Formats: sequence, C-alpha cells, structure tokens
Amino acid sequence: MHAQGPLVLDLPRWLTDRLRGDVVLPERSDRMRLAIELARENVRQGTGGPFGAVVVDVASGRLLGAGVNRVVPLGFSCAHAEVMALGMAQLSAGTYDLGAPGQPDAELVTSVEPCVMCIGAALWSGVRSVVCGASEANAIAIGFDEGPKPADWAGELGARGIAVVCGVLGDEAAAVLTDYAASGGPIYNAGRP
Amino acid sequence: MHAQGPLVLDLPRWLTDRLRGDVVLPERSDRMRLAIELARENVRQGTGGPFGAVVVDVASGRLLGAGVNRVVPLGFSCAHAEVMALGMAQLSAGTYDLGAPGQPDAELVTSVEPCVMCIGAALWSGVRSVVCGASEANAIAIGFDEGPKPADWAGELGARGIAVVCGVLGDEAAAVLTDYAASGGPIYNAGRP
Repeated sequence: MHAQGPLVLDLPRWLTDRLRGDVVLPERSDRMRLAIELARENVRQGTGGPFGAVVVDVASGRLLGAGVNRVVPLGFSCAHAEVMALGMAQLSAGTYDLGAPGQPDAELVTSVEPCVMCIGAALWSGVRSVVCGASEANAIAIGFDEGPKPADWAGELGARGIAVVCGVLGDEAAAVLTDYAASGGPIYNAGRP
Repeated sequence: MHAQGPLVLDLPRWLTDRLRGDVVLPERSDRMRLAIELARENVRQGTGGPFGAVVVDVASGRLLGAGVNRVVPLGFSCAHAEVMALGMAQLSAGTYDLGAPGQPDAELVTSVEPCVMCIGAALWSGVRSVVCGASEANAIAIGFDEGPKPADWAGELGARGIAVVCGVLGDEAAAVLTDYAASGGPIYNAGRP
C-alpha cells in the first residue's frame, strides 16, 4: 500500500492569524457572524469551499475551535468545516469527547445546516448544541448535496441531548452560497457513475 | 483561539509495516478478511477501537488505502476506520474524489456497517461500492451507537450509484466486537447530558 500517511489537516494561515489570542463571542449572533465571515473569507482567499464553523463554550462564549471547508485543498472529502472545527476544539481540549466531565458545554455553530456526515460528526463530538445559518435548501439550490439525512434530524439530535437551532442570520449565511455560485465557484460533489 | 492545529491523522506503525508494498485482494472475502484482521490487531496493539476498513480497486483488488479506528489515541471523534481508510486512499490518489475521471472504481470494505457519519463519508468520497461485515445490531449489542441512520441507508446509497453489500464474513467480523466487549474494552461514545 502506498498511502502511508499521515493525513495532515491544517487551517489556512489567514484563519489562525485572524483568531490568535482569546476570542469571546457572547451572543449566538456573534458566533454565527464569525462562522459566516470564515466561510466568505475562505472563498476569497482560495483556501476552500463556502462553509465555516466554530465551536464555543456556550456559557462564556469563548472560542474553542474554528474550521472552514478544506475538501479540495487538502484532497480529503471529509474535511468539511464542521469536522475541522470539531477536530480543532478536540485537539485543544486534549480529548475526543467535548462532553467529557470537566469540559465546558460546547456549541457547534455552522454557516450551513450539516450534511448527513456532519450530523454524525456533531453527535460523536460531545457538543451540547448545534446552531445553523443557511438551510439545506440553500445549499442544494446551488448544487451541493446534503445526502440522505435522517427524517427530522434535529429531533433525532434533540432526543440525544443536543439542542438544534436553525436559521440564525440565515439570509447573510445564504448570501455566501449564492455569491459563491454567482462567481463560478466549483461544486465539488464526488464523481458519480 | 488556542487550537491552531494541525490535526495529524496517522496510522499505527504496525499497520503501515504490515501493508508495505503492493497488496492485492482479488476476492471480496480477501478484502473483508483484511479489514477484520486490522480491527482485531488494532485492539491487540492498543492503538484504537475494534473497527477496520480498506479501500480497494474493485477490478484488480489492489489496496488503495487502509484504516483503523483511531478516535481515542488521536483524540478526534471523527477518526473512524472508514474515514481513515478513505483519507489514506485519497492521499494516495492525490484527490478528494475517488470517483474522478481516471481513477479506478473504488470499493470501501468495512468490518462493521457504517454509522451515520460514515454513510456520509462514503457518499462524499467517490467510492462505487460499500461492503460490510458485522451488522449495526452487532455494534449496538456491545454498546456502540450507530446514530440516527436514514431509513434504508443502503437503498439511499444505491440510488446514488453506490452498491452496498452487507454480512460478508459477518460472524468473524462480529466476533471482534464480542471479544472486545468481553475483554472490557472501553465503549467511547461521546458524553451525554
């Protein structure tokens, strides 16, 4: 086998520079505004697709992790913004479980409703809540696939103790997608037979 | 923000040593036997959970990527065997899309039916088929959660051009799980409220 790895998942330099030091996002709208800013800047900088996400300590608003879509630059189809943000928060926390005893209650804030993969990623991460900006319909409208999501996915997460809130700054979040499509940005679904 | 990354996803040394050079797995049972061997060895070596996966060129049986569950050692809840194997195959292929023109038709072979996250990961990876060993019920029986999978997930993948075959060497695959549970292996679902 020639794929020995490792697979190195990094964030763009502009992002780590932008978020250096303590970042505190007290309100839900502050958190979403940052996720949307990251999505938009990711396209402008040419470092990935039009999706951004952050993980915050719900109570204090302290930023625990951030991510942008890195699928094309990293050559890794799982490098969605949510996966990147959750991974960075877990790296910082030193554990795969953000819901472990002693960890602050964590919230995933994503510029677009999660696809089927990221619904699972949120579930396994230990976050206590998920906040979404643009809708699944907004993503589908420009050609991105969200996959076969479970019926009432928000209810399914809710039943597992993860509260879901959708449509926060929905218009601003959706504008990132429509601007991306209008500028001819690639829609990078996997090849199909 | 203190999580600057990068997040480094590596395979255990015993695995890369085991699979050095060209590996060819002509039959579906050969492929599953290797996925099961990796799952079992991962537990024995203490390098992660009881799950293994490989990605092969369907036509030739050439191994394109391999993975084992690395959630606890890497501190990353998305490091399921399927995600690792797909990532390694994509790293080797030099593209996020195993279904891109010029790529061989790729098959994901996993020792246990994929969870909701890995159903999405398979979908976005560009593989043409998914082959499973142990069932969802086998995983749940020892306490692992598979998440809110879409009803008829295999049919959903099939409708998107990805054939799914379940129950290949199912008893051998399930035995890895029951042996793991019997030995007191940790069941590392994320913390819940």
